Amino acid sequence: MKAAFLRKAGDLHVESNVPVPECTADSVLINVKEIGVCGSDLHYYAEGRIGDHIVTGPHILGHEASGIVVETGRDVHGFAVGDRVSIEPGVPCMACDLCREGRYNLCESVHFSGAPPYPGMFREYLTHDPRFLVPLPEKVTMTQGALVEPLAVGRNALRKAGVRPGETVLITGAGPIGFSCIEMAVVAGAGRIIVSELVPYQRAKALEIGADAAIDPVNENLVERVRELTDGRMCDCAIEATGNGAAISDALQCLRRGGRAVWVGMGKPTAQIPHAEVIRREATILGVYRYANDFEPVVRLLEAGRLRPERWVSHYFPLEKIVEAITTAANPKVERLKVVVTT
Amino acid sequence: MKAAFLRKAGDLHVESNVPVPECTADSVLINVKEIGVCGSDLHYYAEGRIGDHIVTGPHILGHEASGIVVETGRDVHGFAVGDRVSIEPGVPCMACDLCREGRYNLCESVHFSGAPPYPGMFREYLTHDPRFLVPLPEKVTMTQGALVEPLAVGRNALRKAGVRPGETVLITGAGPIGFSCIEMAVVAGAGRIIVSELVPYQRAKALEIGADAAIDPVNENLVERVRELTDGRMCDCAIEATGNGAAISDALQCLRRGGRAVWVGMGKPTAQIPHAEVIRREATILGVYRYANDFEPVVRLLEAGRLRPERWVSHYFPLEKIVEAITTAANPKVERLKVVVTT
Amino acid sequence: MKAAFLRKAGDLHVESNVPVPECTADSVLINVKEIGVCGSDLHYYAEGRIGDHIVTGPHILGHEASGIVVETGRDVHGFAVGDRVSIEPGVPCMACDLCREGRYNLCESVHFSGAPPYPGMFREYLTHDPRFLVPLPEKVTMTQGALVEPLAVGRNALRKAGVRPGETVLITGAGPIGFSCIEMAVVAGAGRIIVSELVPYQRAKALEIGADAAIDPVNENLVERVRELTDGRMCDCAIEATGNGAAISDALQCLRRGGRAVWVGMGKPTAQIPHAEVIRREATILGVYRYANDFEPVVRLLEAGRLRPERWVSHYFPLEKIVEAITTAANPKVERLKVVVTT
Amino acid sequence: MKAAFLRKAGDLHVESNVPVPECTADSVLINVKEIGVCGSDLHYYAEGRIGDHIVTGPHILGHEASGIVVETGRDVHGFAVGDRVSIEPGVPCMACDLCREGRYNLCESVHFSGAPPYPGMFREYLTHDPRFLVPLPEKVTMTQGALVEPLAVGRNALRKAGVRPGETVLITGAGPIGFSCIEMAVVAGAGRIIVSELVPYQRAKALEIGADAAIDPVNENLVERVRELTDGRMCDCAIEATGNGAAISDALQCLRRGGRAVWVGMGKPTAQIPHAEVIRREATILGVYRYANDFEPVVRLLEAGRLRPERWVSHYFPLEKIVEAITTAANPKVERLKVVVTT
Repeated sequence: MKAAFLRKAGDLHVESNVPVPECTADSVLINVKEIGVCGSDLHYYAEGRIGDHIVTGPHILGHEASGIVVETGRDVHGFAVGDRVSIEPGVPCMACDLCREGRYNLCESVHFSGAPPYPGMFREYLTHDPRFLVPLPEKVTMTQGALVEPLAVGRNALRKAGVRPGETVLITGAGPIGFSCIEMAVVAGAGRIIVSELVPYQRAKALEIGADAAIDPVNENLVERVRELTDGRMCDCAIEATGNGAAISDALQCLRRGGRAVWVGMGKPTAQIPHAEVIRREATILGVYRYANDFEPVVRLLEAGRLRPERWVSHYFPLEKIVEAITTAANPKVERLKVVVTT
Repeated sequence: MKAAFLRKAGDLHVESNVPVPECTADSVLINVKEIGVCGSDLHYYAEGRIGDHIVTGPHILGHEASGIVVETGRDVHGFAVGDRVSIEPGVPCMACDLCREGRYNLCESVHFSGAPPYPGMFREYLTHDPRFLVPLPEKVTMTQGALVEPLAVGRNALRKAGVRPGETVLITGAGPIGFSCIEMAVVAGAGRIIVSELVPYQRAKALEIGADAAIDPVNENLVERVRELTDGRMCDCAIEATGNGAAISDALQCLRRGGRAVWVGMGKPTAQIPHAEVIRREATILGVYRYANDFEPVVRLLEAGRLRPERWVSHYFPLEKIVEAITTAANPKVERLKVVVTT
Repeated sequence: MKAAFLRKAGDLHVESNVPVPECTADSVLINVKEIGVCGSDLHYYAEGRIGDHIVTGPHILGHEASGIVVETGRDVHGFAVGDRVSIEPGVPCMACDLCREGRYNLCESVHFSGAPPYPGMFREYLTHDPRFLVPLPEKVTMTQGALVEPLAVGRNALRKAGVRPGETVLITGAGPIGFSCIEMAVVAGAGRIIVSELVPYQRAKALEIGADAAIDPVNENLVERVRELTDGRMCDCAIEATGNGAAISDALQCLRRGGRAVWVGMGKPTAQIPHAEVIRREATILGVYRYANDFEPVVRLLEAGRLRPERWVSHYFPLEKIVEAITTAANPKVERLKVVVTT
Repeated sequence: MKAAFLRKAGDLHVESNVPVPECTADSVLINVKEIGVCGSDLHYYAEGRIGDHIVTGPHILGHEASGIVVETGRDVHGFAVGDRVSIEPGVPCMACDLCREGRYNLCESVHFSGAPPYPGMFREYLTHDPRFLVPLPEKVTMTQGALVEPLAVGRNALRKAGVRPGETVLITGAGPIGFSCIEMAVVAGAGRIIVSELVPYQRAKALEIGADAAIDPVNENLVERVRELTDGRMCDCAIEATGNGAAISDALQCLRRGGRAVWVGMGKPTAQIPHAEVIRREATILGVYRYANDFEPVVRLLEAGRLRPERWVSHYFPLEKIVEAITTAANPKVERLKVVVTT
């Protein structure tokens, strides 16, 4: 089979004749069809590491994929050859306290596809734990199946935000995670969605997929614009999807008293925040890390036509052109949104 | 002004030359424009009472209304003559424990318009506490403004249900409150909405406004049909909007383990329920009584075009024909949904 | 080893020369030291079944036990020979939706010790999944270790009740589960604990371990007594630990508006409840089934001296006298509380 | 009557012959008995202001008081001359969204005693809104009645923390608010309470009133000590009661994954926090501002003997010596805890 190996920063090549992994008794062999390119893939390509996760040998990136079952292990029930599936990339231990509490995304022993040393999904075949595969109904496309992953992040963010029908939601950052949060905010019943984003065509896309207003935080004063748009009421919740220091602080300033901020965008290790205002407003801040129990409901919403992530896919590349896929996704001069790789 | 007085069961007449109420320093005088007919109005008309609320003298019914401000009291701020408003009918004491806890719908000293001895809204003018008026934006019609009240019940039900995006919701009963719950379940992100309703044209309407399936609970086995429709997974939550004993029990049987049932429909004082199953499934049951802090977000959702209650209004009658309005609404042989009275 | 086998209703005998189970690679072999007698053990002894769980061959009862590790499987980490442990009896699949959501007590594939066909703990040795063993600190006795199980039920009940410091809690039923709930209500910060119980010496024990008042629901009017004791404020939450129809109904009537009822006691399949009152009070009813993630915190509270279940142990019997243990526990003429079997 | 007036920073004098306020129809006249000195009183004395609250004319400080009813307004029900009461200092508007949602502590129009321009409680008589008075049972002393206020802050902090029985709680800062949080953490069922505090005698007091360990954050490494004390498990929640930058950051680092941090101590406007760690741990941060609906349950816990704030009162001064009271409370060289003023 073909697979793309990153050996060190900038050294990424597709190889043929890679052996197809063997399907063990309790796993499922999948023919990968489409794989989304995530910001973390760009980061590994550029730096060869993310924090403590370091690429030390040939490593396969990619963790947003759909595919077709081609073999099922002897002890596997519930899947058959030909099933179309979305692949949840993190397989947790299911034994620690956090797994037992239902917060398996926080498992310290998780095997997460694409994060070294665990091989990812930019390849033609992979094996996976059937507990972390979700069948795709006929109506859901392979592209949608690959994008269940970023949508699951959005669902986790909106679950944490606890939006009640009719509330006002601010989303800072309109990249793929921001788009996922906008889609999910519409689904969750937001009465008004305000987006903050630097890049004009991303603001335009945000408005197209459900935002009611899109603010340029450099040329406009975000806090004051939100005050105007809400007649002084400010936002019930803010979803921070940039990781940028100014956005983190501004998002908190945009909350009404008693509001909730959700942090989903990761940037620098630390941030300066308006501590006294968090107290004075009795704000709640909720960290969001990946997702847990979110894949299946996302698939149901895709089936129902209530999520349409294909609207924010801008480019497709075949696996052979993965370097082009990644450099396109990383190039701020290109009008690119989500980039998808096909096998 | 004109007002409709109920003197005893069946004795309802519109009178002219009724004095317009005086606008005190802290109240607002409103020219009522449209008023929805509620099941409780039918009940007062038929029986002259609901429980301890007994019609003992000339009494004005009605508690779902929109109107236009015609005078504001000396101490009133934030309202001006000409403002279009929706009227929240219950004015609580704002002093007791429950009011202070934000559960003012449970206040034992509430003055609720239309529940004896407090006069209701089937009249041309009324005064109201400005804290319980919500301005209507231009895009929201007077009919929609009158129907904020039943929609607020739906919002309270869905808030209690705590639906997360993509969950499966059962709604038993597709009358006006059921319709309100269907609309709100769509808004709240349900991935699949299953409705149970006896009457064919109400089932058809349920499908039209957002239900994915509508079951006839007499000629079909509700629990088994839900099992089929959900591939055995059953419902994450059930909203019981009939008050009927069989529906109450069936709704609980349709829950998956860990599911939530919301009770919004009131019927007989007691019900036989599957107690052991509630424990075995670790189900949660949540009573819903009116609404609190729901009017404003409903208005925002109407403005955003995300709620369209006009789809389930079947008849309009002028105030003069209020008896016809009420007998139409009470007549099971007529294909009627919500009936609205105009002044 | 010795083990007690139930062959059919009333046919319970201790046998010697039973083979000690083999310790597989991923399990732990435990020398059982103390085992609590639970109401369900009495029920199996009397009837040979509970619902669909039917004793069809030689079956070992018992699911509340402490013991000492005597062997650890090859792949087991974190346990050593000599470790004192409390045994969580239900081993769930850790693969289904409910397990993944942290509600593993609701797993439909759980292997629950002592529920046919899974052998229980009235024996000298058993093997168990190490994920469901909790180490006992030195300060915690073997009796306390056996009673972690009923205390975990109490913790689950109090978690669901969501008691905030200073609230008033009603507990109906002062048997072992009621005692567990009383202990946990004290720990959870109840400001006032009212107990309802038929039997005088159980009422006395309830007062001894933390209740502020103990009511005889036959000779007193429970609802009226609660009204008096709370100056009309009624209870913030009610924990129903009898399964009795009158208690279920009364507990709901004792709630203040907005209050919560927790159902932990199982009785007949159905119950008649004040449906309209649940709505009018906007009450919440929460079913409680076993426990999830409760063993470890219970052990910590035992270590801290904040739970003292030994106060409600009335009898000890050696394993040889298990029939006497069970008939004592089942005999309403004896002043018995919790009965414990030792090996 | 006597009252203490602050005219500007450092200019505080008790005056006699101050007119007793008139008891209006809807208020209650109270003979103040004891008043706690709060950190904010010290701040006003030292600086003449806190943020936008500036002392511009003769101003009475103090907002933690108990007293005796001496007159009740014509329209007041539920209070009688001679009643002993605790006074909740903030009287909100009860009309805005936040008041209607039960979050009246966030009301933007609150009249808060002692915060300019609203006169406080260092005086012999004051009038107050009866909705914000709580009767004191016989068992509750006047000192306890005055300290309901800081205990209510502790209750709000513990409510927000959502401690479940047996959890591990870190409290940074053992001043009066820290003590209040320690007392409330015991009541709320913490299984282990770890305190961090610079001052040795305050650490000793923390251990006396319920902490299991007290760490010196300057000479010890707080995060590492917590790791040791919890066998690597870290804390379920952290209550930050200093407002100090290092403590804010350390408290977040002491959380287990999925943990909750509560911020109750106010310091500088901004703080540098470990943003990426909040996300990676999916931590929740909850601001706490004053209290809402907390006075009555605190009084019930005092009556039940479950809170004993008198243990952390170190000094009493008569009103005449208020300057000495405040300078004692402000003097880090004195072994002082809570200082109380008596009239």
